[in-house]
This record gives sequence, C-alpha cells and structure tokens, in this order.
Amino acid sequence: MIEFHGYFRSSSSYRCRIALNLKRLESRFHPVHLLRDGGQQKGDAYKALNPQMLVPAFEVDGHVLTQSPAILEWLDETYPEPPLLPQDTMLRADVRAFCAAIGCDIHPLQNLRVLQYLAEEFGAGPDAKNAWCQRWIGDGLAACEALLARRPAARFCFGDTPGMADIYLVPQVFSAARFNVDLSAMPRLRAIHAACEALPAFADAHPARQPDAE
Amino acid sequence: MIEFHGYFRSSSSYRCRIALNLKRLESRFHPVHLLRDGGQQKGDAYKALNPQMLVPAFEVDGHVLTQSPAILEWLDETYPEPPLLPQDTMLRADVRAFCAAIGCDIHPLQNLRVLQYLAEEFGAGPDAKNAWCQRWIGDGLAACEALLARRPAARFCFGDTPGMADIYLVPQVFSAARFNVDLSAMPRLRAIHAACEALPAFADAHPARQPDAE
Repeated sequence: MIEFHGYFRSSSSYRCRIALNLKRLESRFHPVHLLRDGGQQKGDAYKALNPQMLVPAFEVDGHVLTQSPAILEWLDETYPEPPLLPQDTMLRADVRAFCAAIGCDIHPLQNLRVLQYLAEEFGAGPDAKNAWCQRWIGDGLAACEALLARRPAARFCFGDTPGMADIYLVPQVFSAARFNVDLSAMPRLRAIHAACEALPAFADAHPARQPDAE
Repeated sequence: MIEFHGYFRSSSSYRCRIALNLKRLESRFHPVHLLRDGGQQKGDAYKALNPQMLVPAFEVDGHVLTQSPAILEWLDETYPEPPLLPQDTMLRADVRAFCAAIGCDIHPLQNLRVLQYLAEEFGAGPDAKNAWCQRWIGDGLAACEALLARRPAARFCFGDTPGMADIYLVPQVFSAARFNVDLSAMPRLRAIHAACEALPAFADAHPARQPDAE
C-alpha cells in the first residue's frame, strides 16, 4: 500500500494523483495542510518524513519517496502499464523537457513559500504576486505551446494516449486559472487540457474532489 | 556529433558538461551569451532552436534536445556507460529526488531572469538579490544535506562512484559560493564537492575553464 502525504491544492500532489489513477493504483491519503498550524509540512512529524518540508511524500514498504518528478519516474518504472513515457529515447527526451519546462521553470516560482517571501521581504500585495505568477506561468506555458507546435496534432501532448507531459500540464493549467493567466494564445494546450479533463483519471484527481478540499 | 549550445556560468550547462565528461563523449560547443546583445538566448537564431529561450540545448542528428534534466536522462539512456543512475528503482528515486531538490527547488529561483525581475519590478538591489539567493540555496542545500544524512557515508552523494546527484550538486555549490551562502553546517556536501573537484570530469567542466569564460 502506498501512503500518500499531500495537499489538495499542491500541483505536485495533483500530478501524483493523476499518475496513480492512470496506473489504477490504490493509495491511502494523509492530508498535510500547508497553511494550518503555521504549515503542517514544517511540523516535526512531517519534517521527520521529508526534511525538505514539501509535499508530496510517498511511504512504500518503509521507504520514503519525495519530489514528484522522482515519484512519477518511480511509478512508471515500478508499474509499467500503462506507460507514462514513450519508448523512443529522443521522444522521451522531448516529453521530459516539456515536463521540466513546467516542473522546474514554472511551478517552483509560484510555490507558496516563494509568494510568502515576496510578501514578507518585498511587500508584494495580491496584485504584485499575481503579476509575478502571471509572468512565469504565462511565459512558461507559451513556451510549452511552442514546443508542441513543432509536433503533429494529437489529442494529448505527445500522441493519442495521456502520459507524463499531460500529468504536468493539467495541474499547471489549474494553477494558471487561479492566477488569471490568459491562455487565449495557447489553443493547443487548452484543447489538450479539455481532452484530459474528460478522462476520469484526470477529473477524479482535481483538487476540488479531494477529501481535504476546502 | 553533439552540438552543445550553452553558457559558461549556467548551472544547467555545467551539469551537461560534467555528464559529457563522465561519459567521455565529444561535443562541439556554441556559446550563447546570456547578457550580451540583450541576451543572445532571446535572439531569433537561438529562439528558433529553443522557444523557451533558455540554455542549454543539444542538437543531435537534426533533433533539438532542451532542459538539462531531460538531456541528462537522454545521455544516460543513450550512452549507458558509466551509468549516472543506480539500477535499484527505490535508489533511483532517491537520486532523482536529490536532483529535483536542486533542479526544481533551488536553481530556477536564482536564475538570471528571476533576479532581473526582482530588480525591475521590486527594486531589489544587490543585497536583496543576494538575500533571496541565500535563502533558497541555503534552505535547499540544507535539505540535501539532511537527505544524505540518512544514508551510509560515501565518497560521493550515492556511493563510491560519481553520478547524477553529484552532477547537480557541484554546479549548485559553485553558485552558492557566488552568492556567499554559508555551507559550514553542510560538511557532507562540502566533502563530496571536494571529492568531485578532484576528478578531471568535474574539474574540466568548471565555468572558469570554458572557452567563453570571462
């Protein structure tokens, strides 16, 4: 059994939920509230699990897995069906580059701890924090749209079955909506997002449908 | 032949140089100056190669590879010897989590474009930018030290041969020095860094030893 420590609104927890659903794997959810009690991820119990004090974390057979990029690769290596990455090494590199464009160059910049720093140290109010998020999400998703524009049309990011790139895209589009990012110039990403949301594996992973949703 | 577009001071280019050296692979270097001409990565020539306008990019047989996490996985899949990742899937997850702790949660926050935004939009001067970098690099590397503290002592991050985690660590320690981050509470990371620097594959990849160094 996978013990899944996460938070409904966390993009990286959301990615893991989608992957678990696509793989049809069971897990037991342990909510970690990122705001309550000064941030439960900073409490002794969670810190002992993950010294980085970030969600998600998986506990599997007494082993603790952290960092969603590592967890997703582990899931795909351990439970190969259905595959989240293609077989061809060049195409795998394209998929992983798309994922890193979101996982490295967008998501960490709009993370809670970063927005808290901007407020505390630079006096950023809601408008300034929104502008910050809009810049990195907007630029980043525009680059993702351009990366896909080089490829033949497809229902999902990389072909006619959902995979790793879609797992990164959907939570990032959810987050883009929270920060009012304009996606009108990204028709392909919007169409892929809609195709994903039509699948139960994605729809059931939506933050609003989690037991700790508010 | 691998056509390698990068910049001497870029951490992600530095990672790729170390990996190429460890794999004993030849490449032809094409410098992309991130400050000159308003940032050569934003010019039409480079943008056509990589719409994300970030270095590094590899051109291989007419295919463009971007994002160092994707490039490093591709290198390891395509040229398996010596391996950059262990065989055991749980241990692979630990290594990738360490890499993501740096590649997602430290490096993108201290990237040039982010520091430029802080200066332009929040009026951050050199001290405020340093404090920002010190926070994320300091917290992030402290978490990396804690992740390794759970493991048996070893010459490198994950055992007695250098691998993917060391490839991420060494450029991040270089960057920590640039921003005067105090690493005195991270003895294990410092010892591993010294062990890596003693190897030609790492030493030859140092930014100061590149053709575009200033």
